[in-house]
Amino acid sequence: MPEVNATIIKQLRDVTGAGVMDCRKALEETSGDFDKAKAVIAKRGLERADKLSSREAAEGIVESYIHPGGRVGVLVEVNCATDFVAQTQAFRDLVHELALQIAALGPVAVDVESLDQAWLEGEREKERAESDVAGKPKDIQDKMIEGRVQKRLQEVVLMKQTYVKDPGKTVEELVKEMSGKVGEPIKVRRFARFELGK
Amino acid sequence: MPEVNATIIKQLRDVTGAGVMDCRKALEETSGDFDKAKAVIAKRGLERADKLSSREAAEGIVESYIHPGGRVGVLVEVNCATDFVAQTQAFRDLVHELALQIAALGPVAVDVESLDQAWLEGEREKERAESDVAGKPKDIQDKMIEGRVQKRLQEVVLMKQTYVKDPGKTVEELVKEMSGKVGEPIKVRRFARFELGK
Repeated sequence: MPEVNATIIKQLRDVTGAGVMDCRKALEETSGDFDKAKAVIAKRGLERADKLSSREAAEGIVESYIHPGGRVGVLVEVNCATDFVAQTQAFRDLVHELALQIAALGPVAVDVESLDQAWLEGEREKERAESDVAGKPKDIQDKMIEGRVQKRLQEVVLMKQTYVKDPGKTVEELVKEMSGKVGEPIKVRRFARFELGK
Repeated sequence: MPEVNATIIKQLRDVTGAGVMDCRKALEETSGDFDKAKAVIAKRGLERADKLSSREAAEGIVESYIHPGGRVGVLVEVNCATDFVAQTQAFRDLVHELALQIAALGPVAVDVESLDQAWLEGEREKERAESDVAGKPKDIQDKMIEGRVQKRLQEVVLMKQTYVKDPGKTVEELVKEMSGKVGEPIKVRRFARFELGK
C-alpha cells in the first residue's frame, strides 16, 4: 500500500481542487489508491452540490431601492438558507445590486418559469407576423422566431439579463457566484418595480 | 334690495364656511338674497370638488419602507396632480405613513374595486358554510354574510382600514384630509408588501 504522504496529497489537491483534509481522508479510505481517491472526492463534491441546491432557502431579506426623485422604486426579496448569511454585508450588497439592476433595466419577471406564458405566446405571434419571417418556410420561421424570442427574454427576464455593472456576466452568474462563496443556495424570490404613472 | 354689507357677508360665511370674496360675489349675484346666495355657494363648492376628483393624478412619488431586520418590506405609489405637491414634506409624510400602515396591517388591496373578486366570492362562501349561518332563513343568511364580509373588508382593504396612528379615522379619511389641505386629488395607486418566506 502506497504511503499517504504530503506529496501524494498535494498531487490529489492539484487535480481535484479539494482541501488538504478531504484529500488525506479520501486517500486513507482508498488505502492510498490515487485514482480511487479521486473518484471519492468527485462523488463527495456532487453530493455537496446537490445538498446545496435542494436545501431550503427560507431566510434572506427584503430590500428596496428608490431612485432619487421618487419616480422609480423597487422592492426585492432574496432568499438564502440561514439568517447568518442573510445578515452578512456581502449578501446585503448583492441584494442592493439586484435592486439597482431591476430599477435600471426594468425586467418583468425573475426567471422564464415565472414569466406570464400568455405574454410569451404573444411575443411569438408578434414575431411570426413580421414581414421578414412570414415569407419563409415553416422550419426557418420557427428558428427565426425562437432566436428572437430568446433575445427578448434576455431583456425582460432578470436572471438572463446582463449584469449592468459587469457586462461579462449575467445576473444568474452573479447570484451563483455569491452562492458558491457563501456555500448556500441563493434565490431571487420576487420583485416589484413601480414607475410613476406607468 | 337688501344691502350687501359686512354683517350679511359674515352671516353667510358663518353658515357656509366660504371665503369673504366668494360670499360677497354670491350676494351681489343674487341681489343680496341670503338663501339664493347660500345655494350659489353650495353649487360652486360641489363644482370645485368634482373638478378636484376628475383632475388627473399623474404625479406623485414611489416610496418604500423596510422594517428593521429586513423581513418585511413595502413599496407604495401615491399620486397627486402636481409635482409641486409631490415634493412637499406634508405629502411625503403622508406617503411614509401609508407605507408604515401597509407594513403593520398587511392589507391585500388598495380599495374594494381592486380586490380580487374571486377572493371576495370565496369569503362569502366561507361565511355561508359557518354553522351559525347555515340554519337561518335565506334573507337572514344574506344579511349575516354581508355584515361579516364588510367587517373582513375593513381588515384587508387599505382604504377601509382604521389608521393605526389615529384610530378615530380610516385611511381613506386620512388621504381625503390631505387632499383637502393641498387642494389636489390624492390617490393611492398601488402597493406591494413582501414578508420573508410568505
